[in-house]
Amino acid sequence: MSRKPALAVVGATGATGSVLLRILSQRADVWGGIRLVASPRSVGRTLTVRGEECPVVPLDEDAFAGVDLALFLVPDEIAARWAPVAALRGAVVVDTSAAFRLDPDVPLVVPEVNPHSVRLRPRGIVAGPGAATLAMAPTVGALHAAFGLRDLVVASYQAASAGGRSAVAALRRELSLVAGTELGSAPGDVRRVVNGPPAAPGRGPLPSARDEAPLALNVVPWTGTLQEDGWSSEELGLRAETRRILALPRLRVSATFVRVPVVTGHSLAVHARFEDEVTVERAHEILATAPGVVLFDDPAAGDFPTPADVAGTDPTWVGRVRRSPDDPRALDLFLCGDNLRKGAALNAAQIAESIAEELPL
Amino acid sequence: MSRKPALAVVGATGATGSVLLRILSQRADVWGGIRLVASPRSVGRTLTVRGEECPVVPLDEDAFAGVDLALFLVPDEIAARWAPVAALRGAVVVDTSAAFRLDPDVPLVVPEVNPHSVRLRPRGIVAGPGAATLAMAPTVGALHAAFGLRDLVVASYQAASAGGRSAVAALRRELSLVAGTELGSAPGDVRRVVNGPPAAPGRGPLPSARDEAPLALNVVPWTGTLQEDGWSSEELGLRAETRRILALPRLRVSATFVRVPVVTGHSLAVHARFEDEVTVERAHEILATAPGVVLFDDPAAGDFPTPADVAGTDPTWVGRVRRSPDDPRALDLFLCGDNLRKGAALNAAQIAESIAEELPL
Repeated sequence: MSRKPALAVVGATGATGSVLLRILSQRADVWGGIRLVASPRSVGRTLTVRGEECPVVPLDEDAFAGVDLALFLVPDEIAARWAPVAALRGAVVVDTSAAFRLDPDVPLVVPEVNPHSVRLRPRGIVAGPGAATLAMAPTVGALHAAFGLRDLVVASYQAASAGGRSAVAALRRELSLVAGTELGSAPGDVRRVVNGPPAAPGRGPLPSARDEAPLALNVVPWTGTLQEDGWSSEELGLRAETRRILALPRLRVSATFVRVPVVTGHSLAVHARFEDEVTVERAHEILATAPGVVLFDDPAAGDFPTPADVAGTDPTWVGRVRRSPDDPRALDLFLCGDNLRKGAALNAAQIAESIAEELPL
Repeated sequence: MSRKPALAVVGATGATGSVLLRILSQRADVWGGIRLVASPRSVGRTLTVRGEECPVVPLDEDAFAGVDLALFLVPDEIAARWAPVAALRGAVVVDTSAAFRLDPDVPLVVPEVNPHSVRLRPRGIVAGPGAATLAMAPTVGALHAAFGLRDLVVASYQAASAGGRSAVAALRRELSLVAGTELGSAPGDVRRVVNGPPAAPGRGPLPSARDEAPLALNVVPWTGTLQEDGWSSEELGLRAETRRILALPRLRVSATFVRVPVVTGHSLAVHARFEDEVTVERAHEILATAPGVVLFDDPAAGDFPTPADVAGTDPTWVGRVRRSPDDPRALDLFLCGDNLRKGAALNAAQIAESIAEELPL
């Protein structure tokens, strides 16, 4: 390598983008120039990365001139349009959106689990999975290597920041409306304060389809878009992505995704059944040394992960490891990870660094 | 029946007690006198029931003189001590605590599922299950009758009011501390604001075992007391209670119980596997007519239950009914119920009414 590779960060001004800029400033510096790219309305702003102010340039074909590797932290439709453009201009693309996750010509990579998949990238694009999959993959991958995974049942506790800055702002607005009130015990009282009076008062406690359910003092069993048979895109995404990453194309996965009033940090309750019998002792040994995983599991001492404690940290934290009382092949566990760091920006940075090492420069 | 039965409400001044007094005022009035019983420190207070002010009398042996039926809404240890006293004085006891739930001589009753069990009560005591079991029982019971239940995987989203008035007050205090702040993205920032500086600052983001994890902007994967092999009393309680109520002593049940920043309304993500193949259409038909259940399931219209919408209502609300894409015998669903009404006070009132009909007075 005769020079350090040039990096472009596409979506530098977004919530995940700003996390990535912090991560780039904290990790070993493998990059030459870093170009910050965003939508034309952000042009003229400057952002700090590696201690230096950098101008934001507009997302167009010229943005990728001379770029070796482009990190995309943008919505699906923008990634779908611009990642191939960057690849055609010669940059290797690492995309965090859902646009390419199920494309058989795009590897889906979690460096702790399937690092070598990054090398075969016929379209010049590498994808990272969704934040919930990323929270689970290092833990489940390590257990699979030891016990042979057969099926997964997952329930999620997902943070508002998965919906970007606007979703966090909405949660904060709702919290300021309900804090200091006696709300939360009567039918629809939180919804009325947050959303205003119902459109159809005759429906009683039933919500109006006009409004999103409030997230403050509530949990909302929906994320993503409606797919076949009542499943959401994110629930089916977890299944498809986990199958690809673990190279288990027939893995059985059932997931129910639920948003909770947490700013940052996805949590998952995971029930995993294996080919082999398991013990908590052996699972603890495996998780204590698994890359990207911190075992934090001693309920007697109050040690179990919560999103408020793990937000801002890199690894997935795992606790509540129990063997099913009725099935010696099944484990139940609870895990938390920062959905903006490992859940998006950090995983992308790790993939990009592994590619940077092998670029022929 | 020559006279209406006399009722005692033990624990009338607590959070569940006040819900019960409202319920007694709303339902068909089958009772003669209603005596309100509480700890000696509440004596001298009066409470309203059926539109009348009633004095609170102290919990002692005399409290049960002339009482036909005593409803207990008190902590386990008080129920364990006083329910047998009431039974010895000739009252039939309906207990909502965990003290007698697994006693083979005490029937465990959910009127929608196993109403006839109430008749065989050798100790003169009838128990109701925990709020999470109650949220699930009418739904799972109806599906079991149709398809034959084989195993359950459950993740809970439990409201603060399960911990009584003090837990709700703690959540409201925490919410007022974090509302209007930018907290929630950095390691431990919510915990520091809620709990004060950590006892062991060197531990970094790790919590101090001295403090409970905050519930505002957080979820906490722990309820109850520590039992064998890392399981909590409430997780094992759901398993044991569901087995008793459904008369399935070998039913496989794995549960992970998690508290969420909701005031009222327990939610559960349930993965249920059956003997027979299932369809969403057939499950919808069954749930649409199951007693105590409201089917509310049309994600395209924004129709799925959330605790903020069901708090204060009687039934369990069920939505997100899906058949596993990998197992034609498995259903995934999401349900919510008011943990103080059906989850405790309402179920006890229903049991008491069914006993009152048959008392030889």
